Amino acid sequence: MATHFPLYGLKPLLVLYASIVSLPGLGLGTGTVDYGRDELFSEFLRDEAVERIHQLGKISDADGYLERTFLSPASITAANLILSWMQDAGLRTWVDQMGNVHGRTESMNATSEALLIGSHLDTVIDAGMYDGSLGIVCAISALKVLKKIGKLGELLRPVEVIAFSDEEGVRFQTTFLGSAAVAGILPASALKISDKNGVTVQDVLKENSFEGTEESLVQVKYNQKSVSGYIELHIEQGPLLESLGYPLGVVKGIAGQTRLKVTVGGSQGHAGTVPMFMRQDPMAASAELIVLLESLCKHPENFLAYDENCGGFPKESLAGLVNFTIDLRVIDDMAREAIILEFSNRVQQICNHRNVNCTIDRKHNAGAVKCDPVLSEQLKNSARSTLRKMSTDTTDYQHEIPVLMSGAGHDAMAMSHLTKVGMLFVRCRGGVSHSPEEFVLEDDVWAAGLALLQFLENNMLNSVS
Amino acid sequence: MATHFPLYGLKPLLVLYASIVSLPGLGLGTGTVDYGRDELFSEFLRDEAVERIHQLGKISDADGYLERTFLSPASITAANLILSWMQDAGLRTWVDQMGNVHGRTESMNATSEALLIGSHLDTVIDAGMYDGSLGIVCAISALKVLKKIGKLGELLRPVEVIAFSDEEGVRFQTTFLGSAAVAGILPASALKISDKNGVTVQDVLKENSFEGTEESLVQVKYNQKSVSGYIELHIEQGPLLESLGYPLGVVKGIAGQTRLKVTVGGSQGHAGTVPMFMRQDPMAASAELIVLLESLCKHPENFLAYDENCGGFPKESLAGLVNFTIDLRVIDDMAREAIILEFSNRVQQICNHRNVNCTIDRKHNAGAVKCDPVLSEQLKNSARSTLRKMSTDTTDYQHEIPVLMSGAGHDAMAMSHLTKVGMLFVRCRGGVSHSPEEFVLEDDVWAAGLALLQFLENNMLNSVS
Repeated sequence: MATHFPLYGLKPLLVLYASIVSLPGLGLGTGTVDYGRDELFSEFLRDEAVERIHQLGKISDADGYLERTFLSPASITAANLILSWMQDAGLRTWVDQMGNVHGRTESMNATSEALLIGSHLDTVIDAGMYDGSLGIVCAISALKVLKKIGKLGELLRPVEVIAFSDEEGVRFQTTFLGSAAVAGILPASALKISDKNGVTVQDVLKENSFEGTEESLVQVKYNQKSVSGYIELHIEQGPLLESLGYPLGVVKGIAGQTRLKVTVGGSQGHAGTVPMFMRQDPMAASAELIVLLESLCKHPENFLAYDENCGGFPKESLAGLVNFTIDLRVIDDMAREAIILEFSNRVQQICNHRNVNCTIDRKHNAGAVKCDPVLSEQLKNSARSTLRKMSTDTTDYQHEIPVLMSGAGHDAMAMSHLTKVGMLFVRCRGGVSHSPEEFVLEDDVWAAGLALLQFLENNMLNSVS
Repeated sequence: MATHFPLYGLKPLLVLYASIVSLPGLGLGTGTVDYGRDELFSEFLRDEAVERIHQLGKISDADGYLERTFLSPASITAANLILSWMQDAGLRTWVDQMGNVHGRTESMNATSEALLIGSHLDTVIDAGMYDGSLGIVCAISALKVLKKIGKLGELLRPVEVIAFSDEEGVRFQTTFLGSAAVAGILPASALKISDKNGVTVQDVLKENSFEGTEESLVQVKYNQKSVSGYIELHIEQGPLLESLGYPLGVVKGIAGQTRLKVTVGGSQGHAGTVPMFMRQDPMAASAELIVLLESLCKHPENFLAYDENCGGFPKESLAGLVNFTIDLRVIDDMAREAIILEFSNRVQQICNHRNVNCTIDRKHNAGAVKCDPVLSEQLKNSARSTLRKMSTDTTDYQHEIPVLMSGAGHDAMAMSHLTKVGMLFVRCRGGVSHSPEEFVLEDDVWAAGLALLQFLENNMLNSVS
């Protein structure tokens, strides 16, 4: 990771937070559009957006914590609220046959390809309120500002916000039901997937007055030729931006993932009766393997010539047998294979030496997604001018906007099968996500909305207008 | 461990087994008693003893597997069978108020201190048939041979076989109910200990027509002054004798034990979003601690100036928290404390370095028991002359009988509070115990009985007789 962004050192987090000044409205903008008025639209991009995120955060199927799964009653309520905000922003709205909520504004040229901006309206169980919602709310707010300043009709391309109905995959254990349908990669068999009570995706669709047929699924799919790109704004869900002192970062790509199940078989002995030198202890062997894996992930340059990122490894132990799973996430698919090969070879060496046997099974594989360089550069420029406008200290943000890898999956993964994708990450407190502790500063919500607005103004408006 | 016995190298086990020849009766004995007849009493010490072990192995409270807990119906049946065998050997028998079965022969001198020989008649759940039973059966068989050759009345000391009612502690989760009562270290409060159904030790005693009072417990206690020593023959429950090619070994002592619970607290992150260098991963930290512990136990000389043996470490993992327990067994109590101190210091260093926190709680402590040097020497001599007599190859067993440490606990631990103790270990297949896979060669059962007979003849008979 260290080669992907400038490392300013890991300063204490509170000090870094203090460098984001909450005195807006100075209009130091150097972009193509200089507002210099209305406090950089803080009324819409900060106050209203934050209020809306809190509103969505209260719409839950559970008592006392946040939970919205695919087409649940709370999801329907949330979808209707989002529809009303889209309409408030001057967008034409509809809900597709997979429950995705669309809000679109047409362009001056009816034949031009559309820019899609999306994120998801579903949540995990006991979720935080920013994951998904932030991207939807900020996109709508940015378009609302365009409407307020009379530029919604001047867009060079259609711009469409999509609030996807399922990204987390909580109920049916299959992620991206919503965005995969739009991207056209959701197989018809997905309709038959059932939840733990035997209720299928099809059942749930029909209960909610959707058709739930293969034909209706095909209708959801977008035509590649009518789409120019997809951008997504999402909380980082990691601690990097916080540690670097930047509210925004550009996503270089989403890591490919391999899950390995490692099973180490040794032998049990009566407590204390087998001397150390005669043991075939699968737990001690596994500990050595985990230490090796960590070392390989921290310093891959000592093992092979690739960059890396490695996930966590939960663990369970049985009699005479230890299993653990490895969640390996790497931005480069070749590097991921190289790491798996190197690790597997060393595992066999260690296990032979310890006289325990070991099998490594590949349980899951997903290729990495690279974000589009042009979209990324546009997002980076928008983020940079946003941060400079919002800052009262001209020495702030002199460096490049951080470029990050996403270890977590996002709707952009599915959408990459349809079109070019770009992502903007927003700083969150302590890197915490999927938890009620999830938190984004109000000014960072504002920065996010302003960056989207800047992106639209810089790239979707005729510069001479 | 390596300093406690000569290392002949870890030859393949089948080859080593082949060196024990099953052609008896050559009478090459060099001990004080040369039988040279009756095939070294194989009829009693091998055939009948093996038959009896199998008989006991079938007396179970469970269907399809062996289970005999404290004063269970099967235990009562087993006790009665053992009583009949004791009577068959010419012993005076009784059952004490804790259900221990006694068989005693008096000596020519009514005032001399008695030699006790014991082991336990209870079993774990899904037990093997040798653990406990072997020691009882072989002791009775050895005395039966003395009776057959007319020497039972010539003993210099009373000899008493005790089949203890509870060593495994399965039902009441407290080991040594039987032997601790004889040793006088069982507190009166033990009567109030209840099983998982709320039935107390006292209830079980009364159900079986024992008094179950504090007074009756006091009656079970032996007077130190009337006892000269306690010896116990037991399967090794470990693989050392098998690897050395010896059917018998002398126990130097029983390891002291400390159980530590280590809790490592780090922080969780969303899958793949926290870069390696920013993680506080308690699993990776625990893996490093386990590798350290193994290294400390395998090569304590690299860490401190003590000898050692370390037990296993089961493990469980929770969110953001990893617990594991350490079962540390060391023959020297000072060494055990030194290892705990050294390990604890290094754990804190590692956890500080990794920015995870760690607590180490001491859950259980038991001091080591040293076997009596005189009894051990006598047992060693008896074992050596037994093995030489049984072997047809005079180059066999030229080395000293192995001297082992016991990592597992035995009744001798409790009995050490009453008197000097000595133990003889018998080889078992693959070191497996507490399992139906437990197995002792018929010739090794014979060797065990013959060694006890030799011990009695060498040390309990007037050499001029």
